[in-house]
Amino acid sequence: MSNADFHLIYWPGIPGRGEFVRIALEEAGVAYKDTAHQADCMSVMQSELAGDDGNPPAFAVPALRHGDLLISQTSNILQYLGEVVAGLAPAEVPGRYHVHALALTALDGFSNEVHDTHHPVDISAYYDDQKAEALRRARAYVGGRLPKFLAHFESVLAAPTSGAGPWLYGGRLTYADLTLYHGLDGVHFAFPKAVAKARESGKYGRVFALYDAVRERPNIKAYLASERRQKYSDGIFRYYPELDIV
Amino acid sequence: MSNADFHLIYWPGIPGRGEFVRIALEEAGVAYKDTAHQADCMSVMQSELAGDDGNPPAFAVPALRHGDLLISQTSNILQYLGEVVAGLAPAEVPGRYHVHALALTALDGFSNEVHDTHHPVDISAYYDDQKAEALRRARAYVGGRLPKFLAHFESVLAAPTSGAGPWLYGGRLTYADLTLYHGLDGVHFAFPKAVAKARESGKYGRVFALYDAVRERPNIKAYLASERRQKYSDGIFRYYPELDIV
Repeated sequence: MSNADFHLIYWPGIPGRGEFVRIALEEAGVAYKDTAHQADCMSVMQSELAGDDGNPPAFAVPALRHGDLLISQTSNILQYLGEVVAGLAPAEVPGRYHVHALALTALDGFSNEVHDTHHPVDISAYYDDQKAEALRRARAYVGGRLPKFLAHFESVLAAPTSGAGPWLYGGRLTYADLTLYHGLDGVHFAFPKAVAKARESGKYGRVFALYDAVRERPNIKAYLASERRQKYSDGIFRYYPELDIV
Repeated sequence: MSNADFHLIYWPGIPGRGEFVRIALEEAGVAYKDTAHQADCMSVMQSELAGDDGNPPAFAVPALRHGDLLISQTSNILQYLGEVVAGLAPAEVPGRYHVHALALTALDGFSNEVHDTHHPVDISAYYDDQKAEALRRARAYVGGRLPKFLAHFESVLAAPTSGAGPWLYGGRLTYADLTLYHGLDGVHFAFPKAVAKARESGKYGRVFALYDAVRERPNIKAYLASERRQKYSDGIFRYYPELDIV
């Protein structure tokens, strides 16, 4: 099986949760197909989610097909890429689980909880129908959760397990770094004032150094400037001026 | 390293997220220490979360110590147990990732989203300060998300990948089954009317057969009747009569 057999199954028109997978594939420099750029995206998504004899039905995208294997759940896909693509994760047991915990925590703090800031009480209803609740949730996020997660990652970067360089674990880049980078990028899109204030505070210098270092990786830089990169819009990360608080 | 070296680090007084780990350890029949039953629980939690030279700081409990290794994040711990304890997960690549996706989806639908029904807008505020929002979120959960997740797992159990018997994948019990079981048990505690209605509808016969089958496993049965099992109270799964809707 060649890496060109990677096929990312995800909605078009937003970076969304699929972007965590895309960023890992791009950094690793492997070829992949992406439903976001296919005319038959919707029908492919529908048929892949149904599963087949070798793969159980999946609850939601993103999913990744690699030959006969179809796997779902963002963190699960990242872990799989960490196992089969060189340079995204340590191969040995302690490092593998440590990196994965860091990626899961980054997804919690900089993706799942961000989604809830614009959809706090009804995932299937419009934002316009939950604006008051969204403002309350955004206040709790910006004032409480965001600094808590930033402080956690700052402490991880200050710990001996971080090793040399700007990375979270073991002195080398892993998919946990890429996940933290993209989550923080999305939070910056949604809450630019709060993230600017966090950066200026100087309290999370290591976190922002990691962010800057990922952004300067040649493959990431090329990807961000390419047509493959989709603009933020109505996905997990949304910009509503009334929620852009500090 | 023996299995007796397993040490679950979690809050006392609630089953909580730690219970997903506990249920897996109990089903596997391995000995473990549990901070929930230690007088020095709080100080152990605090020192373990800080990490040490071999382990990065952890964001939150549950954490599991196994000899020198300390890992956090519920799904990550379950996956680790699937790798090092016999009988909780397939060892090979496709099955390992499929089982993990199923466990992650069960945690999403029957744990994370349930927590949000009583804390929809501010995780650090009291339930009493978000009762109106909680009722709205509970309505969206009971009326929309719960049936969606139940239908998903029913389809997984009806797919060829489920294999023989009541289990989700490959004809044998895995930690994904245990996760679905305990999540549904918690949802039943929080929303007894809605879960009774779902059972009576007959639409999710396979899901409830799995639930009943796990409950009858000798080790699980003995555990549930033991002193080790803590009562539901103010954790993820809470009973508020005003949220017990159908």
